[in-house]
Amino acid sequence: MTIDIISVVPDLLNGPFSHSIMKRAQDKGLLQVNVINLRAYTTYARAQVDDYPFGGGAGMVMMIEPLVNAVEDLQKNKIYDDIIFLTPDGETFHQKMANALSLKNNLLMICGHYKGVDQRFRDHFVTKEISIGDYVLSGGELAAAVLTDAIGRLIPGVLNDETSALSDSFQDNLLAPPVYTRPEVYRSWRVPEVLMSGNHRLIEEWRHEQSISRTAARRPDLLD
Amino acid sequence: MTIDIISVVPDLLNGPFSHSIMKRAQDKGLLQVNVINLRAYTTYARAQVDDYPFGGGAGMVMMIEPLVNAVEDLQKNKIYDDIIFLTPDGETFHQKMANALSLKNNLLMICGHYKGVDQRFRDHFVTKEISIGDYVLSGGELAAAVLTDAIGRLIPGVLNDETSALSDSFQDNLLAPPVYTRPEVYRSWRVPEVLMSGNHRLIEEWRHEQSISRTAARRPDLLD
Repeated sequence: MTIDIISVVPDLLNGPFSHSIMKRAQDKGLLQVNVINLRAYTTYARAQVDDYPFGGGAGMVMMIEPLVNAVEDLQKNKIYDDIIFLTPDGETFHQKMANALSLKNNLLMICGHYKGVDQRFRDHFVTKEISIGDYVLSGGELAAAVLTDAIGRLIPGVLNDETSALSDSFQDNLLAPPVYTRPEVYRSWRVPEVLMSGNHRLIEEWRHEQSISRTAARRPDLLD
Repeated sequence: MTIDIISVVPDLLNGPFSHSIMKRAQDKGLLQVNVINLRAYTTYARAQVDDYPFGGGAGMVMMIEPLVNAVEDLQKNKIYDDIIFLTPDGETFHQKMANALSLKNNLLMICGHYKGVDQRFRDHFVTKEISIGDYVLSGGELAAAVLTDAIGRLIPGVLNDETSALSDSFQDNLLAPPVYTRPEVYRSWRVPEVLMSGNHRLIEEWRHEQSISRTAARRPDLLD
C-alpha cells in the first residue's frame, strides 16, 4: 500500500513514520509513505499557498490552484482509491473504517492548514472527508499521521502474532480487558489471582467478563 | 503551561512540536513540551520496559516499575494537575475537554505502547484516561501529540486574531462554514456571489446558514 500525504509543513511528519511499527511496515515493503511539500506546486511568489478569505474574517485559506497542481501531478503516476481530506467536519474515523482502508492500494491524504481549504477543491477533487475526532488541530498533519498509523498496522503482515490486532479494543465492539505483567506484587498491589492460575479456560472467561464490564462502565454506547 | 510526555519512542515526537503553531507557542514562552524517555527509568537489563502478560496472550505489557520511577522523579519538581494516560478505552477527547485542559498549569501524559500498560499503574497513578477516538494506534505518542496540539493552540496568546479559535468547528456546536479565496473563478468554478458582495451582514447570515445546514447534513448529533 502507498500513502501519499500533501502538506505545507512536511517536516512535521518526519518522526511519526520512522519508528516502531510504521518503520517495520515500510522496511517489510508493505507500506510506503511519501510526504509531498505543497509549496513545490505553487506558481505564486515566495511559495505562497494561502490567501485571505473572500468575504473577510479570521485566518488564511489554502488556495485551490497549488492543491490541484499537486494532485494532478501525482495522478500521472498513480490511481488513487481515495483522495482523503482531513477536516473536523468530515466523517468521524473509527476502527471499521481503518479496516476497510487497510485493504486499499493507493491513498492520497490532503492536510489542511490555517483556516481551511478553498471549498471548490473539496467539492471537485476530494473523494472522502475524514475527521479523527470532535476537536480542532493546527493542521491536518497529525490527523494524517493518526490515519496512516491506524491503517498501516492493519495491513496483513505488518503485525505478527505477538502484536496481533485481533485482541485490540473495538475489533469486537468491546474494550480490551486489563493486562498485568511482572512483578506479581508491586508495593502491596497484587496481580488478580486468576491470571496466575494457569487455567486458560478460566483466564479467558475472566478476560471476557472484564471486557464486558469495562465496556458497560465506560462505553455503554458500544454495546447497543 | 508545561506538558511532559513519557514515551518509549521519544524520537517519534521530534517533528510535531517543532513547527507551525506549536513552535510559536513555545517560542512565546506560553507552552513548554518535554518528552521523557521511559527507558531512562528502568532498572532492568537492556533498558527493558515491557514483559509478557500474566495469564498468557498476544503482545507485551509495559511494566509498572519504570513508569512509577519516572512519574515520582518528575513529581519531585512539579505538581501535575492531571496525569493523563492515552488509551482507546479512555474518555473520548472533544473540544470542550481541550478548552478545560488549556487552563491547567502542568500536565503529564503517559504514552502506552505494545499491548498495554500494567493495570496497577492505571489504578494507582493515572488521574485521567483519554482516548482521541474509536480506533487503535501503535502507541499513545500520536494521541499525546494530538492532545498537545489541540490544547496548546487554545492557551491564551498562542493564536492571534488572524487565526482565532472562536470561529472553529465545535466551539459553538456547529461545523465551520465553507471558505473560499482567490482566484474568484478557477476552471469555471465561481466563488458564491454573496462573499463578493461586500455586505458584511449578508455574509454573516450566509455563513451562519451554511454552518447550520452543514451540521444538519453531516453531524445532526451536534444539534441535539
